[in-house]
Amino acid sequence: MSLILDLVVASRTLAEHGVIDAYGHASVRSDRSPQRYYMSRNLAPELITEADILEFDLESRPAQQTDHGLYNERFIHGEIYKARPDVNAIVHNHSHAVVPFSCTGCQIRPIFHMAAFIGLGVPTWDIRDAQPGTDMLVKTPDLGEHLARRLGNHPAVLMRGHGSTVVAENLQRAVGRTIYLDINARMQLQATTLAGEGGRIVYLDDAEVAANVSWQNYVRSWDLWKRKALARLEAEKR
Amino acid sequence: MSLILDLVVASRTLAEHGVIDAYGHASVRSDRSPQRYYMSRNLAPELITEADILEFDLESRPAQQTDHGLYNERFIHGEIYKARPDVNAIVHNHSHAVVPFSCTGCQIRPIFHMAAFIGLGVPTWDIRDAQPGTDMLVKTPDLGEHLARRLGNHPAVLMRGHGSTVVAENLQRAVGRTIYLDINARMQLQATTLAGEGGRIVYLDDAEVAANVSWQNYVRSWDLWKRKALARLEAEKR
Amino acid sequence: MSLILDLVVASRTLAEHGVIDAYGHASVRSDRSPQRYYMSRNLAPELITEADILEFDLESRPAQQTDHGLYNERFIHGEIYKARPDVNAIVHNHSHAVVPFSCTGCQIRPIFHMAAFIGLGVPTWDIRDAQPGTDMLVKTPDLGEHLARRLGNHPAVLMRGHGSTVVAENLQRAVGRTIYLDINARMQLQATTLAGEGGRIVYLDDAEVAANVSWQNYVRSWDLWKRKALARLEAEKR
Amino acid sequence: MSLILDLVVASRTLAEHGVIDAYGHASVRSDRSPQRYYMSRNLAPELITEADILEFDLESRPAQQTDHGLYNERFIHGEIYKARPDVNAIVHNHSHAVVPFSCTGCQIRPIFHMAAFIGLGVPTWDIRDAQPGTDMLVKTPDLGEHLARRLGNHPAVLMRGHGSTVVAENLQRAVGRTIYLDINARMQLQATTLAGEGGRIVYLDDAEVAANVSWQNYVRSWDLWKRKALARLEAEKR
Repeated sequence: MSLILDLVVASRTLAEHGVIDAYGHASVRSDRSPQRYYMSRNLAPELITEADILEFDLESRPAQQTDHGLYNERFIHGEIYKARPDVNAIVHNHSHAVVPFSCTGCQIRPIFHMAAFIGLGVPTWDIRDAQPGTDMLVKTPDLGEHLARRLGNHPAVLMRGHGSTVVAENLQRAVGRTIYLDINARMQLQATTLAGEGGRIVYLDDAEVAANVSWQNYVRSWDLWKRKALARLEAEKR
Repeated sequence: MSLILDLVVASRTLAEHGVIDAYGHASVRSDRSPQRYYMSRNLAPELITEADILEFDLESRPAQQTDHGLYNERFIHGEIYKARPDVNAIVHNHSHAVVPFSCTGCQIRPIFHMAAFIGLGVPTWDIRDAQPGTDMLVKTPDLGEHLARRLGNHPAVLMRGHGSTVVAENLQRAVGRTIYLDINARMQLQATTLAGEGGRIVYLDDAEVAANVSWQNYVRSWDLWKRKALARLEAEKR
Repeated sequence: MSLILDLVVASRTLAEHGVIDAYGHASVRSDRSPQRYYMSRNLAPELITEADILEFDLESRPAQQTDHGLYNERFIHGEIYKARPDVNAIVHNHSHAVVPFSCTGCQIRPIFHMAAFIGLGVPTWDIRDAQPGTDMLVKTPDLGEHLARRLGNHPAVLMRGHGSTVVAENLQRAVGRTIYLDINARMQLQATTLAGEGGRIVYLDDAEVAANVSWQNYVRSWDLWKRKALARLEAEKR
Repeated sequence: MSLILDLVVASRTLAEHGVIDAYGHASVRSDRSPQRYYMSRNLAPELITEADILEFDLESRPAQQTDHGLYNERFIHGEIYKARPDVNAIVHNHSHAVVPFSCTGCQIRPIFHMAAFIGLGVPTWDIRDAQPGTDMLVKTPDLGEHLARRLGNHPAVLMRGHGSTVVAENLQRAVGRTIYLDINARMQLQATTLAGEGGRIVYLDDAEVAANVSWQNYVRSWDLWKRKALARLEAEKR
């Protein structure tokens, strides 16, 4: 299956799981040039088809001339691809359970083995540290670069009052991490209530994180998601 | 697309998102006369079609004679259109996550950038302040006028033990604000648990609110919602 | 529409709203004899059709001979119809948000105007007070009679670790009350978190409860639910 | 209906209820040999059909040669069938509400009569006690045997940061227990908030547990689930 179709599957899967609504976007680095990435024109992810995918350079300019509208926040993607040669896929999202962690000082930690990657560290970025008084969007290369620096070598970065950006070596891993980041957040919230004031929660330790992250590509999930997304695409054509 | 069809789309979108059930209603000021507004006859919003939309004057009397039942609480709409010439669309709703904020003294605040408008101030109205011992409904012009006064120049007003009323310059903004008010409420509740007793939550500051509110019209969402609502309307005709 | 079909609509509506799953049941007093009531044979409510409805006397014996299995807990219905001539419809359910109120000493109270009836008082019944060491089910006339006594003249009774039983003068009111009892429970839980330890929640006062309960028959909801349930029944026949 | 088809129904029912997603698996002991059990090849449970079911011996080796991929964690099943001759069905799952109980020291207890079996005791297993630094998966016979020992004679065992494994004398009971374990967990979390710091929750007592567990086979649920799963299977064939 082509990378383009994979990106369509990824976008629809993220929407289906409610971790993105009309907002949020996935991208994937081109398999033909590391200086290019694919992302949809400005469109709600659950509507995306292969025809909507555009190619961008790392300055987040369309590689081919286009009359389509573009995502304002495409610089999140371009600047991270620039800073992180190891990253081949990025998901920017507003998943609801994650936002509260971005503005309370409560650190998200790996409570669930499917989200072990959180143990690699998930910093929080506050756009105010880059520029005060913004509309909260990463609309410029400078803001994107500032976010990429806060992300550092981590697999994800929370964005205060906004959402998160999740990265990975491949698209299915980025999608899986995004979905399980949200589930981990829900579980950690519940554990906070169960543990009570001053209670103790047992998280995955560093050795467990390392052992799990080394191979976790969400393969069985991806097979399921792909099958369902392709079936929906087929149904829409009819 | 006509304003009438937009109102049908708005009603069904609000129902689809669960922020209204059989109760709650959207209206839009007429584009032909600022002294008139459109609203459905007494019907659950998810059933509304263009044929169900009636025209009202600002006293909330039907502009044309009708045998249809009318919403008891239409005065919410008429009185706000009277008091607020800048307002062209209104959504009255019972979204579940918002009601708890209306009766606990816990102020709803902008925690999520998609709901930045909350930073313009969302007062709470207690119907008891207008009249004790009511059935909680805004069934008279006087109650509607009292509510409109409490709303003041704000984008929304919570109604104690009942729901909220959200206003905007246009319909898609009123719908978007209603949906994200509910999401913001859910996030703020979660943040309250995460922050713990006496913990601190970082909200959008005034400059961020101003920068975001100035342009936020939920355009990409509206395009998605419209497309889905029109598809459902088509399917029902078959 | 016949009372039998109304009961089918009620059963499917309750299942659709998740306030009953395979368990729980609705009944309605016969319009031909106050000494009889209608209820389904032993079947999950979302599967019920008119052919599954049986007639019972107030001892909860089938009025006509039948080979069908019967609900073990039919005595809930028979004993309440005996004790409460004003009651014409009963819903026994396990709605998830309500159970926690039945076993914590936290009194459910009317926080939402659609559930104003809670202000008429909702006692909790503990089956242990009637008989220790049961399997928790109301399987005998004696247990049903004990429950009916705890219900008294109230509109609903919580059953510890089990669910609730809701009564009304007519079927649509019993269904509406059951659905909004669940929603009120969710709102009150959220308000408890928002208010914090020792915080204050404003509930509907007695005058508001009385004014609202006097007319609240959930008419607009019932019209919607009926329309949707009948459409599903039609679709199943095809 | 054959045991194989029952296993397909079980798998799809668990997925439909959200207690398993792409991960998690159900198995059933063969009705032809107690030394054999049935389980799917490596596939997301909601996709399973009869053709995907394989036979395993109690060392969790396929009874017939196969080119299909196998679940890594099949040793959970084989080792429990070895240790527990009374067990004929097993569900391993990641249901979201249960994980927080596995890592907070908060004991899950029977708050809801449909989950009375919890009163028979649900221990928590920490894989670290068997082997530190794992990827959290039960990938070896040794780990499976260690888990089976922690399960002991109980109906379920929580797995820290991972999920749970539920066992029963028959498949429908194992499925019902898994679904109501999740619901009980949700209720207990809510009760914790309602009861407040130091508050008291009333659980089912031992006599109630014993009386309920003796007969609870979730028969009415199983009839519903089977009917719905078979209808979906039929629809997929078309």
